[in-house]
Amino acid sequence: MHATLSATELRSAARRGEWQGTTAGHCPGQQQVNVVILPRDAAVDFAAFCTRNPRPCPLVEILPPGDPEPVRSAPGADIRTDIAGYRVYRDGRLVDQRSDILDLWHDDLVTFLLGCSFTFEHALIEAGIGVRNVARQSRVSMFVSSLKCVPAGRFHGPVVVSMRPIPVAQVEEVTALSARYPHAHGAPIHVGNPEAIGITDLSKPEYGEPVAIDPGEVPVFWACGVTPQAVAVSARVPFMITHEPAQMFLTDLPREGDLPG
Amino acid sequence: MHATLSATELRSAARRGEWQGTTAGHCPGQQQVNVVILPRDAAVDFAAFCTRNPRPCPLVEILPPGDPEPVRSAPGADIRTDIAGYRVYRDGRLVDQRSDILDLWHDDLVTFLLGCSFTFEHALIEAGIGVRNVARQSRVSMFVSSLKCVPAGRFHGPVVVSMRPIPVAQVEEVTALSARYPHAHGAPIHVGNPEAIGITDLSKPEYGEPVAIDPGEVPVFWACGVTPQAVAVSARVPFMITHEPAQMFLTDLPREGDLPG
Repeated sequence: MHATLSATELRSAARRGEWQGTTAGHCPGQQQVNVVILPRDAAVDFAAFCTRNPRPCPLVEILPPGDPEPVRSAPGADIRTDIAGYRVYRDGRLVDQRSDILDLWHDDLVTFLLGCSFTFEHALIEAGIGVRNVARQSRVSMFVSSLKCVPAGRFHGPVVVSMRPIPVAQVEEVTALSARYPHAHGAPIHVGNPEAIGITDLSKPEYGEPVAIDPGEVPVFWACGVTPQAVAVSARVPFMITHEPAQMFLTDLPREGDLPG
Repeated sequence: MHATLSATELRSAARRGEWQGTTAGHCPGQQQVNVVILPRDAAVDFAAFCTRNPRPCPLVEILPPGDPEPVRSAPGADIRTDIAGYRVYRDGRLVDQRSDILDLWHDDLVTFLLGCSFTFEHALIEAGIGVRNVARQSRVSMFVSSLKCVPAGRFHGPVVVSMRPIPVAQVEEVTALSARYPHAHGAPIHVGNPEAIGITDLSKPEYGEPVAIDPGEVPVFWACGVTPQAVAVSARVPFMITHEPAQMFLTDLPREGDLPG
């Protein structure tokens, strides 16, 4: 899929089933978001969970029960069809992967859109910093860390992190640039030592694809919006629909956020 | 109440019923927040409403149903007693004002903490800008504007704004400073002409106390976390508890936010 297509065009391509790749590198001017869909009964606890864990779960928009249109983030879009891939979790197990959720939808479902680090990757690229998962169009490496979320109601579990190899000399700049995007996970939560956050083998990510750390590079970790998927497993959430990791929902919201500052 | 008391001390004073004034000017290092308490049935719609209206309703923390402790914002505090004044709305009417809500509390109630412009007033004062409602310990002027919130479910209504007189020469600096606080309403939403946002008489605020505009000053308006109280009236919300305008809940969260950027 060509990187110059608009968010509307890419959402339409996903709707037609014509787009399977990662969204990393697409729509440099817009925010990309993670998606979590839950029954209304669980939605209040999950909203509380997001506010208590703003690094992995920065709230961009919540849709009222049964409403499939993100009127703030992407007016006219349909959250049931406009993502390339969906995952369905029941009782903490991944039970289905599919290209739309029209037949699962009902008036009780509440959709959460959470910020994504793909949003700030463009700022790194514009500053001349290589982002390997964009250059290769591979799915960024994601790991379940030993860091714990702050619980809220029935939701508890580990923080999932994304990892990008960054040259040592550029870590400070990368940190400062990503810190400008609190709506997209903000600054790294760890630099350098995977074992310090419970990651023993960088070649075996829980989500996405492995990536080599070249000489002179260090692994840099950001909180990741796939965290709710690990939480679903850990807390045995009865029912949850999410996006396929690395295949985000593309919004029309400006990359820098729509609040000054 | 002395401005050097800590947030914990001021919450205790409120709990003992020994503090009646505005919280403006207190706890310069911490965030102050608006409070909205709703039955679980209405809470998902209201969470969606907040995410669609981040200027007036920036989400700081949502507490799960029945939980009176803001574990992220003020561990150990009790939202039912630690504010100087509460308002109770039924069917869109203000029906009670009281100093605690212990006897109204039940396991179904969900508490929302929303950012407040009192948080950034300290940054203005530190920059040498006079903030009259702090200097006089008066309750800041608040007005129901003609600006409309983005609806979500059953919630709709006008944006409430706070107003501070600012010397013309300092408006640019005030705008830049407050823009650094998106978690506390951010930059002004209007400068200069009250009629442009539907305000006909600055001497008659809907909430708080009037304040004179001196020669060389202009009125500067920020989105205000009292907006949900006007929404309760406009949408005839069956039941809502809020703080008393200008008497905020004092958190332990750092003023600048706990995310870099």
